[in-house]
Amino acid sequence: MDLAAFIHEPKGALSYAYDSETLHIRIKTKKDDIQSVTLLAIDPFNWKPVTKDSYVYEFAVDTMQHVEMKKEYVTRYHDCWFAELPGFNWRRIKYAFVLNDGHEFCFAGCHHFTPLMENWTPPKDHTNYFHYPYILEEDLYEAPSWVKDTVWYQIFPDRFNRGAADVTADDILEWGSDELDGVYKKFGGNLQGVIEKLDYIRDLGCDGIYFTPIFDSPSSHKYDTKDYFKIDPQFGDNEKLGTLVEEAHKRGIRVMLDAVFNHCGYEHPFWQDVLKHGSSSPYYDYFYILDADKPVVPDIALAAREGYYFGEHLNYRTFAYTELMPKWNTGNPAAREYLISAAVYWTERYNIDGWRLDVANEVSHDFWREFRKRMKAIRKDIYLLGENWLYSNPWLQGDQFDAVMNYEFTTPVTRYFGTNLPEQERYTAEDFVYAINQLLVSYPKHVARNMFNLLDSHDTARILHFCGDDPELVKLPYVFLLTYGGSPSIYYGGEVGLGGDEHHNRQCMPWKAEQQNLALYQTIRRLIGLRKENPLFKAIDIEWLSAGGATHTLIYKKESSSGTLFVLIHNSSEPADIELPNELQGRKMKDLYNDQLVETAAKIRMESYSFRLLAVE
Amino acid sequence: MDLAAFIHEPKGALSYAYDSETLHIRIKTKKDDIQSVTLLAIDPFNWKPVTKDSYVYEFAVDTMQHVEMKKEYVTRYHDCWFAELPGFNWRRIKYAFVLNDGHEFCFAGCHHFTPLMENWTPPKDHTNYFHYPYILEEDLYEAPSWVKDTVWYQIFPDRFNRGAADVTADDILEWGSDELDGVYKKFGGNLQGVIEKLDYIRDLGCDGIYFTPIFDSPSSHKYDTKDYFKIDPQFGDNEKLGTLVEEAHKRGIRVMLDAVFNHCGYEHPFWQDVLKHGSSSPYYDYFYILDADKPVVPDIALAAREGYYFGEHLNYRTFAYTELMPKWNTGNPAAREYLISAAVYWTERYNIDGWRLDVANEVSHDFWREFRKRMKAIRKDIYLLGENWLYSNPWLQGDQFDAVMNYEFTTPVTRYFGTNLPEQERYTAEDFVYAINQLLVSYPKHVARNMFNLLDSHDTARILHFCGDDPELVKLPYVFLLTYGGSPSIYYGGEVGLGGDEHHNRQCMPWKAEQQNLALYQTIRRLIGLRKENPLFKAIDIEWLSAGGATHTLIYKKESSSGTLFVLIHNSSEPADIELPNELQGRKMKDLYNDQLVETAAKIRMESYSFRLLAVE
Repeated sequence: MDLAAFIHEPKGALSYAYDSETLHIRIKTKKDDIQSVTLLAIDPFNWKPVTKDSYVYEFAVDTMQHVEMKKEYVTRYHDCWFAELPGFNWRRIKYAFVLNDGHEFCFAGCHHFTPLMENWTPPKDHTNYFHYPYILEEDLYEAPSWVKDTVWYQIFPDRFNRGAADVTADDILEWGSDELDGVYKKFGGNLQGVIEKLDYIRDLGCDGIYFTPIFDSPSSHKYDTKDYFKIDPQFGDNEKLGTLVEEAHKRGIRVMLDAVFNHCGYEHPFWQDVLKHGSSSPYYDYFYILDADKPVVPDIALAAREGYYFGEHLNYRTFAYTELMPKWNTGNPAAREYLISAAVYWTERYNIDGWRLDVANEVSHDFWREFRKRMKAIRKDIYLLGENWLYSNPWLQGDQFDAVMNYEFTTPVTRYFGTNLPEQERYTAEDFVYAINQLLVSYPKHVARNMFNLLDSHDTARILHFCGDDPELVKLPYVFLLTYGGSPSIYYGGEVGLGGDEHHNRQCMPWKAEQQNLALYQTIRRLIGLRKENPLFKAIDIEWLSAGGATHTLIYKKESSSGTLFVLIHNSSEPADIELPNELQGRKMKDLYNDQLVETAAKIRMESYSFRLLAVE
Repeated sequence: MDLAAFIHEPKGALSYAYDSETLHIRIKTKKDDIQSVTLLAIDPFNWKPVTKDSYVYEFAVDTMQHVEMKKEYVTRYHDCWFAELPGFNWRRIKYAFVLNDGHEFCFAGCHHFTPLMENWTPPKDHTNYFHYPYILEEDLYEAPSWVKDTVWYQIFPDRFNRGAADVTADDILEWGSDELDGVYKKFGGNLQGVIEKLDYIRDLGCDGIYFTPIFDSPSSHKYDTKDYFKIDPQFGDNEKLGTLVEEAHKRGIRVMLDAVFNHCGYEHPFWQDVLKHGSSSPYYDYFYILDADKPVVPDIALAAREGYYFGEHLNYRTFAYTELMPKWNTGNPAAREYLISAAVYWTERYNIDGWRLDVANEVSHDFWREFRKRMKAIRKDIYLLGENWLYSNPWLQGDQFDAVMNYEFTTPVTRYFGTNLPEQERYTAEDFVYAINQLLVSYPKHVARNMFNLLDSHDTARILHFCGDDPELVKLPYVFLLTYGGSPSIYYGGEVGLGGDEHHNRQCMPWKAEQQNLALYQTIRRLIGLRKENPLFKAIDIEWLSAGGATHTLIYKKESSSGTLFVLIHNSSEPADIELPNELQGRKMKDLYNDQLVETAAKIRMESYSFRLLAVE
């Protein structure tokens, strides 16, 4: 046994309270090293007298639960084992593992490993068991129940639709013009434009809108907030947002806004006050001024003359090196209250369903904990979504976010389907399966269910661009996204074939039919529709039956007591007759996408970049 | 390379903010597999144009910091590597590792491993770097600066000293009588008795007292609180505590009380009200009543007749199965406020220096977060110590506790020195060194510095008992404790040879000289004195020069820029001439314990169960 590769830690993605009476336990062992794992579990206080009437007590190991763990996922280097402990009414547990490699048995406890005989019984040394001390309701992770059933539509408001309302901004460019350089180009999109397209969004099947920021800001992206309490005049006014939310809710569409609390814009009046009055400004400590003895802003003209990069010489913290985005000091109670009061304002008055939290992992845990309490006190079912790009368990313990923007999902998908990437950045099917499996064991199952899964966004190249602008290939990542558990998001326009690299990812939505890929639209619409009908599309767990291989066809299975779904994704430009796994051969099934009954043979024909969704009830 | 054994995770004991400008990074690799590790570190926003004037930016890998990691500790299966990144003024970092096994190089990123050429440069794919998003002051772990310099003296008040005050409790037993069965036997110890012994404690060298509970409770241990706002009448009154704190502070002794917030005693008036009025009691939801349709307390007489264990049939949650200790529902805001208000009361009015938090890991994180904020608002330098017996990082992130009772330290010490344990529970010197090393890499260094390290307590057998009541052997665990970093604690009486198994661990303090082991007392007093003088005793890091071997002599080194301390611990009843490591041979050193200059030879004589403390400046 290779015990160096044994991985477990209490209270995290490998040991967590799934609900108030259920624990989930996971371990990792070296791939192909261990044949079976028994989870031992006992109430830590289950002691009994060593002999009748003795006052010496010992761990009542005869009452120990023995649970066979399931080898659930395989990553490049590990087998990942899982067990659920239901009916856990004591709410507290000591546990350990017995590993069997086919030759010997080993007890894996919290302090050390111990070899066991073949006819082992659980060791009585209670100090060498792991501990989950107590499941407490107030610490449980709980997200709104609607999130896992939602399909999001992400809108960049300046570029989605120019509605019939007054357009108040100056210098509005022609819709669809390719003048995208810089962040001050405006195309006149507005909230009225969104209202006019709510039926379009609903018809596509989406029932949540994530808006990038809509508060008063000079740029087109609006991440440089000037007034947190005011809708940007180009987009409309506060009342217009009220109308939008009302109209969206009528159609069963939730509305999530973008909260930019890491930093504000340069024009924000508090920042302007600091620039004007320096340390005598009441807002001085709302920001991070580095050297109190120096002016807040260094000499820009000097920087230009001397040729150094201005951002590096700033005397205040910013987002990245962006001098136009001074960072809020959320450790200042008044600054904190100001920001939270803005979120309270929109949530209470405008009935918002969620907040996407910009640059969330650069703001303190302490801030988000208070933010969560304040928001959930207004609406228990509000969705709090952090913009974290990487490993995020420290924010997902139930005390901060309900989910993060799941770029850890985006990365393997774009690398596996991304024909446009350099070869060394591509993932093979095997890489892809390992990466998805790794992701599946990186978070608790109930957290995974609420993750905001995306193929692209305003911060990445478009998925169509990754796919070499191939309108057939691009369907496949959507198939994967929409048959994967979580809360998937479509970035506006992706459904009709809007592409663009990372510098052209905010193009105007093409509304004329001749500009749209209607076949792609119908595919995505159908996939969303199937997802809404079929709970298996939303289930978290996947069983891989084939990881590509020579035919480049991924085959995976999702199963529940009510049925089984098989997904085949042929990630190749070459058609192929592929051998089906045994359990898929010679079966009568429903081809969900084509809505017809089929009977499979030993092989199945997969056309270039095609997929099949086969279901058994 | 065995990459299955590579272990790293951001934001935890392996990657943490040491202070506002310094990160500590650790990884584990399979033992003896890797020869060197380079840590790569860069500001995540350090991008530059691919070519001059290009609008395409890439990760500025030419500005990457390269830091050689130090192989700091070895455990049974892993090498543990460490690096400190100082001067970290951007406060945010992307990082990754380059492993070299002497043959090949491998890049270890957050998503996957990549083989590198020998003349490698840092990969430009920024998505495969780990991320520490931002160091924020309000999330930093910060403990009171005095804790790491404190030596604690733990007092079980009923058994420490019966002072000249009025003894109000009935049925007081004769001091030192061996009637220890049950928890209602009282020996009349009191706060006045402690006041009279403050000079004794100070003279021993201790400068902190940890009191097990002192609030009004029926038992002798007082973990069954009846009145959280009142000193137990046997112990004195509230004013007496005021006097005690004042007198202690005069002598430079801090005072820590025990907060029992997991549960109360059966006689607590709120619980009595629930028993009387059931669900119409205003306190009904202060507790966890399981089945609202059933009476709170089942029929005890029936239980007795039917012969079942009463605790298992309780209709309310308790501590363990102890029906006399109903568990508080800290999710109830009024219950929470009640408990916190008690801590506020004692902290504000009586100038308490710390709270030891009973059964802390069975109370919610949410409760402790609020508790910390409330306590630190009163006294920024109050010490908050959780009673967690095992892995405790989730409570030590800076938002809850400053430290835990470090039973993870106790376990290897008692097993290595514990001649009284069955052979299969003993640790060899090698086991011991691996276990201590494992502990050293399990927590951030600044957390380790404040850990409450103990050899024994009211909840364990006495260390003398573990050591087979051998008064020479028992000195050795004290040597280890007092040369180890952290905040060590002496359990009252241990210093004069008070022993006892886990059922006799609360015996009356023997105050007569003839009952005391004065040699042991002088040893411990001298060790504490040396610790106070010599900062190296308190340093966290250890370098092992010899892990026992045939001579059973542990040798370790603690080093700083101001000097070096060598500790030799001969854990054998047989004297031996032991070979010294090269760096200890032929050197002029100070024998600190014996206060004399010595010059070492190639060998040194170690008597039965002896130790040496050798220092170089």
